[in-house]
Amino acid sequence: MTTRLDIRQLGLDTGKKARLYRLLHQHGLRNGTALFLPYDQGFEHGPRDFFANPAASDPRYIVRLAIEGGFNGVVLQIGLAEKFYWDYAGEVPLVLKLNGKTDIPPADEALSPVQATVADAVRLGADAVGYTLYVGTPVQERDFAQYRQVRTDAERFGMPLIVWAYPRGSAVAGKGGADSFYAVDYAARVASELGADVVKVNFPHPEKKAGTPAQYTAEFSPQQAIEQVVCSANRTLVLVSGGEKAGDEAMLEKARQSLEAGATGLIFGRNVWQREHDESLRFVARLQEILAKYPSA
Amino acid sequence: MTTRLDIRQLGLDTGKKARLYRLLHQHGLRNGTALFLPYDQGFEHGPRDFFANPAASDPRYIVRLAIEGGFNGVVLQIGLAEKFYWDYAGEVPLVLKLNGKTDIPPADEALSPVQATVADAVRLGADAVGYTLYVGTPVQERDFAQYRQVRTDAERFGMPLIVWAYPRGSAVAGKGGADSFYAVDYAARVASELGADVVKVNFPHPEKKAGTPAQYTAEFSPQQAIEQVVCSANRTLVLVSGGEKAGDEAMLEKARQSLEAGATGLIFGRNVWQREHDESLRFVARLQEILAKYPSA
Amino acid sequence: MTTRLDIRQLGLDTGKKARLYRLLHQHGLRNGTALFLPYDQGFEHGPRDFFANPAASDPRYIVRLAIEGGFNGVVLQIGLAEKFYWDYAGEVPLVLKLNGKTDIPPADEALSPVQATVADAVRLGADAVGYTLYVGTPVQERDFAQYRQVRTDAERFGMPLIVWAYPRGSAVAGKGGADSFYAVDYAARVASELGADVVKVNFPHPEKKAGTPAQYTAEFSPQQAIEQVVCSANRTLVLVSGGEKAGDEAMLEKARQSLEAGATGLIFGRNVWQREHDESLRFVARLQEILAKYPSA
Amino acid sequence: MTTRLDIRQLGLDTGKKARLYRLLHQHGLRNGTALFLPYDQGFEHGPRDFFANPAASDPRYIVRLAIEGGFNGVVLQIGLAEKFYWDYAGEVPLVLKLNGKTDIPPADEALSPVQATVADAVRLGADAVGYTLYVGTPVQERDFAQYRQVRTDAERFGMPLIVWAYPRGSAVAGKGGADSFYAVDYAARVASELGADVVKVNFPHPEKKAGTPAQYTAEFSPQQAIEQVVCSANRTLVLVSGGEKAGDEAMLEKARQSLEAGATGLIFGRNVWQREHDESLRFVARLQEILAKYPSA
Amino acid sequence: MTTRLDIRQLGLDTGKKARLYRLLHQHGLRNGTALFLPYDQGFEHGPRDFFANPAASDPRYIVRLAIEGGFNGVVLQIGLAEKFYWDYAGEVPLVLKLNGKTDIPPADEALSPVQATVADAVRLGADAVGYTLYVGTPVQERDFAQYRQVRTDAERFGMPLIVWAYPRGSAVAGKGGADSFYAVDYAARVASELGADVVKVNFPHPEKKAGTPAQYTAEFSPQQAIEQVVCSANRTLVLVSGGEKAGDEAMLEKARQSLEAGATGLIFGRNVWQREHDESLRFVARLQEILAKYPSA
Repeated sequence: MTTRLDIRQLGLDTGKKARLYRLLHQHGLRNGTALFLPYDQGFEHGPRDFFANPAASDPRYIVRLAIEGGFNGVVLQIGLAEKFYWDYAGEVPLVLKLNGKTDIPPADEALSPVQATVADAVRLGADAVGYTLYVGTPVQERDFAQYRQVRTDAERFGMPLIVWAYPRGSAVAGKGGADSFYAVDYAARVASELGADVVKVNFPHPEKKAGTPAQYTAEFSPQQAIEQVVCSANRTLVLVSGGEKAGDEAMLEKARQSLEAGATGLIFGRNVWQREHDESLRFVARLQEILAKYPSA
Repeated sequence: MTTRLDIRQLGLDTGKKARLYRLLHQHGLRNGTALFLPYDQGFEHGPRDFFANPAASDPRYIVRLAIEGGFNGVVLQIGLAEKFYWDYAGEVPLVLKLNGKTDIPPADEALSPVQATVADAVRLGADAVGYTLYVGTPVQERDFAQYRQVRTDAERFGMPLIVWAYPRGSAVAGKGGADSFYAVDYAARVASELGADVVKVNFPHPEKKAGTPAQYTAEFSPQQAIEQVVCSANRTLVLVSGGEKAGDEAMLEKARQSLEAGATGLIFGRNVWQREHDESLRFVARLQEILAKYPSA
Repeated sequence: MTTRLDIRQLGLDTGKKARLYRLLHQHGLRNGTALFLPYDQGFEHGPRDFFANPAASDPRYIVRLAIEGGFNGVVLQIGLAEKFYWDYAGEVPLVLKLNGKTDIPPADEALSPVQATVADAVRLGADAVGYTLYVGTPVQERDFAQYRQVRTDAERFGMPLIVWAYPRGSAVAGKGGADSFYAVDYAARVASELGADVVKVNFPHPEKKAGTPAQYTAEFSPQQAIEQVVCSANRTLVLVSGGEKAGDEAMLEKARQSLEAGATGLIFGRNVWQREHDESLRFVARLQEILAKYPSA
Repeated sequence: MTTRLDIRQLGLDTGKKARLYRLLHQHGLRNGTALFLPYDQGFEHGPRDFFANPAASDPRYIVRLAIEGGFNGVVLQIGLAEKFYWDYAGEVPLVLKLNGKTDIPPADEALSPVQATVADAVRLGADAVGYTLYVGTPVQERDFAQYRQVRTDAERFGMPLIVWAYPRGSAVAGKGGADSFYAVDYAARVASELGADVVKVNFPHPEKKAGTPAQYTAEFSPQQAIEQVVCSANRTLVLVSGGEKAGDEAMLEKARQSLEAGATGLIFGRNVWQREHDESLRFVARLQEILAKYPSA
Repeated sequence: MTTRLDIRQLGLDTGKKARLYRLLHQHGLRNGTALFLPYDQGFEHGPRDFFANPAASDPRYIVRLAIEGGFNGVVLQIGLAEKFYWDYAGEVPLVLKLNGKTDIPPADEALSPVQATVADAVRLGADAVGYTLYVGTPVQERDFAQYRQVRTDAERFGMPLIVWAYPRGSAVAGKGGADSFYAVDYAARVASELGADVVKVNFPHPEKKAGTPAQYTAEFSPQQAIEQVVCSANRTLVLVSGGEKAGDEAMLEKARQSLEAGATGLIFGRNVWQREHDESLRFVARLQEILAKYPSA
């Protein structure tokens, strides 16, 4: 087991440290771990993601679920944050997602346009901002330009910056795909090199080797892969993403491996709210059992 | 029947609430519903739209028709607003349409360039601004960039923002088309996620399933579809568009279904002014009969 | 005959009205009509346009010709205005053409880049600015963006804005061509919707029907076509362009039809200066005979 | 012989006149003619241009040569100007070349990016700035945008603007090529229409007619062609470029024809420094013999 | 042997001279030579570069190695500089690398987007900034635009600017490749023409002649080639890059040839840290033996 870093060891400025402390030690399990509830899928995929549980189409339902489930924060786009967060403002931390896109056009040249600013997050009382960086996209120039403005503003306002480090685009597809060990490992490193405070990654798949560099064609266990990813992120805190809804036991095992590897926490959306209300809370409780075993030193 | 939201429940700032109250409760039927008269077709399609009723080519005729018909507002581009609204300023609210394009080049990469600013709307005494967002266009990056500036300015000036949420572009064509239930539902959600106050949608066609995600291939009635769309828009008020002139009974039935579903109102242009003057007013009266049955609580 | 609008009916601000009054009532025939001498062909087509009358290559010759011929204004690009207008400044009004391009590369994606600002026009004592808008070009986004800045500056400085509304680009070619009735009519409307004070159009050709919308495939006389174009321009004053040099009687007949339709005047360049000096003045005199018959009310 | 214009006839502002006077009357032959030494070939073509005379690779050598040869100015890019001009600052005027590019990628869409500003030129004590305008390039929009900023800054600082008016790009290649009479004549005109103070052109080749407009397919002598080019430039002073090193007698004859036609001077680089030191000075002396015969009035 | 230039001969402003003096005379061998440790490969190539020596994945390890090995500076991207440099700030100089990219998408149109500013470097106490310029890329326009801002800021803050002058892109590939003598020589010249203070080049390969200009097809020894490159860089200090890890004796010979040619120093990353800790230090010691033989005058 890798010892997770304490936020005092990350070289953070005062504002970022204050807000990360609030997220990790004054919400959720209050033990330095984190469980976030992302809710931008209505924008990223459309309302189809809510057909499995129509109640989840209502942002009020989601914000309440985040409170009931004891999440460390709920992630919203600007429109929903402005319309729905006021009712519960302060009860659960807000992570304002700053960029996003629809999945209607092809993703060969994936880019997630910025919709809101760090200043919007400050105005709405958010405790962190989220930015999707499509690592490896042929249009990385425009992505990095957007990102740079966000990073600079986040520093100026002392706002923690969570980077959704997603390998994406035509070149990624030809080199093992978006969740290969190679791509996830590279993405974690890029987020760190570019100044993310927290990085959200998909769980790496070491068995996806076709087209990856020689170094990644050796045999690695999932545990070894996620440990390497956390290592590549070095002083950037790692959140592991749930992705599409999958079997519970498999998800819980990945969660356990992630925490074991030194990840700070989990960010699970569809796996949580694409089921009936009480069942969601039961699944959350099981995730929290794992998080409870990995408190920060 | 879905209960329509009161504007006090939308989390609006003071200026936006004041102007929306004026539009919905001090004009038209004054019962919280809305009937808007859009008049940007001369720009979007060219003068050919006026051949059916040449009088409609004259903006004075249209502004007078909006007053005579008791509309909640008339929608104009900047040039016509500057040249023709002064004569009747104050008698009928102005919605300044901020972007637009000609339909001469192909729409595969549809983008509607901004022509005027929210500050122009303030200067002209408008009560709302309109923005066409081409949901799903391959150039969504540039669309969102424009939109973001408009949204920010609208907040700064307390100006209600009506989003023409139109699925468009090459990818939409391959996924059920611009008025499929899938596309309209997604578009309504995007407008809400991105902070529209009011969203203008086309009436959804649940029978257009080819190429849509699996969730939309089940059977839905038109009533179910429009209810879902209003639900996806959540705290964003919904206006249903008339589109091309069609049979009156079919249009009236769609209007009734929309209001029944919780839409706030209608925005009908060609269906109104592509007919002789008195006939236009008679059709408007029939629309208002429907609106009268669905007052806000 | 359509009654031409008086400039008091156009909803103009003080500065624009003052300058238009000067152009239309204190120069030329001083009867509310206009005859402009455009001289940007050296840039748009190159010096080849001067081979028919080499004297016309010299900007001094042209400015003097505008004075001798009693024109309402001479149209120059920034370089020539700075080098040659000083000598005669005040004797004939200057229209500063703000954008332009060479015709060397293909025009499929025609765009006319801005070379000078409205502030340059103010500095040089111009009484109007000119902007070429390529209606229907696939790159209308960039064209509109440029135009918007010009329109805003023209409002700020009270400077009349003359739009060269030219259908152009690959899509126009497939829909009847640049001087079809359809294209010219649409272009006049676009200029009006986007806030031009004056619009320069080519004389419409109703016989060019291939590829145009159904509404334009009926039979129209040239007189009917130009009347419709003036109608589409509504409160935007219309100048009809001479275009390439053609037979005098045909040109004069078009001029007569244009004024009869309610156009404010003519803008003739090559038809004037692509002939020997005295012959130019004789042709100008014949144009003025026509203009004299159509004074403003 | 065309009489060359005096700089008092060009409509120049005070600062531009002061600096041009210094260049033309206080350096070189001090008779109103000019001989410039351009030295940006290391950037435009790479060090290969120095293989014929390795000493020329050293910017010190070139600046000294400009002084020894009695040039009216030496042309440098920002990096060399900052590193090498200090040593001899004031002894020979500096023309700061503001844009440039490598010739490694293809030139179909030629554009010369700006590397330095007019303010840099002011700071370094330069007496003029140089800008390469690729007339006829398909990307003229971006070229003109850059140029416009340079022109505006040059006016603001009273800094003479020398335009390298070079026909270039895929469309030029198909219309007679970069040094056809047609292309050179058009380029000279464009520079003048867009406000250059001085234009650098290649010597026109009237025998290159394939693909040029009809007007240029008649027979013209080289002398007629260069006279027409100087005429198209009207009040813009003309410098004729040497281009690639060629036979001395041919070069001298072109120089003589250019001055005879009214050009202000010559700008010869490779023809000067691609030979041994003393031979360079002898060639320069022969050029100056020609310039001495054409003093300004 | 070419005599290396003293930094007093480079025409530097005070701030740049102060910082270069610190780098070259107060760190490393303190004899005017330099040995830098670059560490941006985790971003440029991904974590795979650390598989040969996993300890090198940890930025702390690298910064400590730079101190232990007596390097003149360590090169970091903004994220790692912010997270890891504080611990050792002042003990070894920081070179902040301002741009970078992943190697996932193809490099035909290579461009290295800017991630941080010169002001960031000032804030972090860096003594120089690094910028990768892809000489010959088809998108040189965007590269030069970025570079120009960096150069201007570096001047404003007196911050030495080290240019990674890398031939790259589709056109380079067809003209001898990125490390041909032709390409490296051209790149060194471009950096100098554009105002770099220090240029980092790859060691030139005179045997790669296919597709290069005629001048480079003659026979040159490696020693002649590197001497020519240093000559082309003229008053720009030259650092020779190690590139991929290769045989030690070959690397040391290239290092010796470079210093002999007048280069100021070496910048070796993978050749240093892609081996076990003590072995790294032994290799560094051998490099320093060479540097010790070439002190500045």
